[in-house]
Amino acid sequence: MCQLLGMNCNVPTDIVFSFEGFRQRGGLTDQHSDGWGIAFFEGDGCRMFLDYLPSVSSPIAEFVRAYPLKSTNVIAHIRKATQGQVSLANTHPFRRELWGRYWIFAHNGNLPEPPSLTSSRFLPVGSTDSEHAFCWILSELAQRFVSCPPLAVLKQALAELAQVLMALGTFNFLLSNGSALFAHCSTDLHYLIRQAPFTLAHLNDTDVSIDFSEVTSKNDRVAVIATQPLTDNETWIKMAPGELLCFVDGMPSA
Amino acid sequence: MCQLLGMNCNVPTDIVFSFEGFRQRGGLTDQHSDGWGIAFFEGDGCRMFLDYLPSVSSPIAEFVRAYPLKSTNVIAHIRKATQGQVSLANTHPFRRELWGRYWIFAHNGNLPEPPSLTSSRFLPVGSTDSEHAFCWILSELAQRFVSCPPLAVLKQALAELAQVLMALGTFNFLLSNGSALFAHCSTDLHYLIRQAPFTLAHLNDTDVSIDFSEVTSKNDRVAVIATQPLTDNETWIKMAPGELLCFVDGMPSA
Repeated sequence: MCQLLGMNCNVPTDIVFSFEGFRQRGGLTDQHSDGWGIAFFEGDGCRMFLDYLPSVSSPIAEFVRAYPLKSTNVIAHIRKATQGQVSLANTHPFRRELWGRYWIFAHNGNLPEPPSLTSSRFLPVGSTDSEHAFCWILSELAQRFVSCPPLAVLKQALAELAQVLMALGTFNFLLSNGSALFAHCSTDLHYLIRQAPFTLAHLNDTDVSIDFSEVTSKNDRVAVIATQPLTDNETWIKMAPGELLCFVDGMPSA
Repeated sequence: MCQLLGMNCNVPTDIVFSFEGFRQRGGLTDQHSDGWGIAFFEGDGCRMFLDYLPSVSSPIAEFVRAYPLKSTNVIAHIRKATQGQVSLANTHPFRRELWGRYWIFAHNGNLPEPPSLTSSRFLPVGSTDSEHAFCWILSELAQRFVSCPPLAVLKQALAELAQVLMALGTFNFLLSNGSALFAHCSTDLHYLIRQAPFTLAHLNDTDVSIDFSEVTSKNDRVAVIATQPLTDNETWIKMAPGELLCFVDGMPSA
C-alpha cells in the first residue's frame, strides 16, 4: 500500500510544511520506502519530481522540501510496492494529456484485476495496477466526452468510474487537471480546510510547527488531503467509503 | 529560437559536463533565457525537470548540474521564446505516451503555421508551435501503426513527417522513446561520438575540462547532439539540412 497527499488552494501556496511531515513516512515513521513523487500544477503547466529512492533520504525530496514552489493543485505519493517492481516507471503520480490538459493521478490501494484496456487510447508504461486503472479512467472519459465537460458532469462521471474500480479492490485516489482536485475514498482518506483565523499547526511525524497566521493573508484557503492526518492539533475529517470530493479554490465543491 | 542538447549512450551516463556548458547559454553566454528543461529516461521511466527561469540562474538547473543522474537517453532544451509566452506549459521538452511508452520531444526553430490537429488524439497544453508539431507527429504515427514498429520503419516514417514539417519552417528536433534518440536537422545540429581512446574535453561556454579517460570504461560509447558544439577541442560533425539520424547505443544506426 501507499500514502497520498494532495493540496488544493485558492491562491498559489507552497506545500513545504505538509511535505516535511509526509516524507518522514517514506522510510522513517512508516514503511512506504519504495519511491515517491510529487506533481505541482502551475497554470496549465505541470512540474513533477519522481524518485525510486525513499522520500526520507532522496536528494530530490530534500531539494523539494527546501524549495518553496507555489501551486494551487499538488498531488504527492509515497510508495509501498504491491504490484510492480521498484522503478521510476512504477512511481506515482502518473501523468497523461486529455482534451489539451494534463491529468495527474496517484493511487493508494490494490486492484488485483483491473479492467481491460483493450482498445484504450491510454496504455500503462510501467506494471502497476494503479497506472493501469488511471489509463482506464481517462479512456472511459475520452469515450464519454469529446472535450472537458462542466465540473459537475465530470464529477458524476468520475464517481461512476470510481464505483466500478472500488468493486475490484481498494481504490483511494487523487486526480487533478490543474483546475480541480478529485479525492476518492475507498478505505482511508482525510482532509482539512485551513482558512482564517489561521492558527499554529504541529506535525505528527516530526517535531515541526508553523504558525499559519504569520504566513497567510486573510482570504487564503487551503484544503489538504492525506491518507492519514499530518498534524496532531487540527481537526481532520475522515472521508466515507465510496465518497468522491471535488476540491476547488480550497474547499469541496457541490 | 532555442538550443537543443541530446545524449544517447550504450551504458547509463551522466550529462553533468555537457549540461554545465549548455546551461551557460541560457542567459550568460547566449540569450536563451526563457526557460529550460531536461528529460532523463531510466528504463521505461522518465524524469523531467522544467523551469521557466533562465537555466543559468534556476535553482533546479543548479540541482541537476550537481546531481549526476545516469541515463542512456537525455533530451534538454533552453528556450528563446518565439511563439507562446514564458510559462511552464510552454517549456520543452514535452512528453506524451504512445503504445505504452513515453515519448520526449524538443524543438529548435519556428513553424508559423503548423499542420492542423483536427481529430488528433494528442493536443497541446501550451501555446507553442513546437508542442503542436509534436502532437501532430505522434498522431500521425498512431494512425500509421497500432504498436511500435521496427526501428527502421519508425525512422522512415519520422523522416517523412519531418520533411512535411521542414517545408513549413525551421524544424530541428530531438525525439526519444527511451530506446532510440532521433535527431533531425533543418538548419543547425551537430554531434560527436565519444569512445575509446577517451581524451580531455574542454567546454566552449565556461572554462571547465574533463579527462574522460579517468571516468569511463573502454567499451563506453556516448553520442552528444547539440545545436552548436559544446567543446572547443573535439571534432563535431555538422548534420546536413533534411538529415534524420537515429542514435542507438551511442552511435547512429542504419
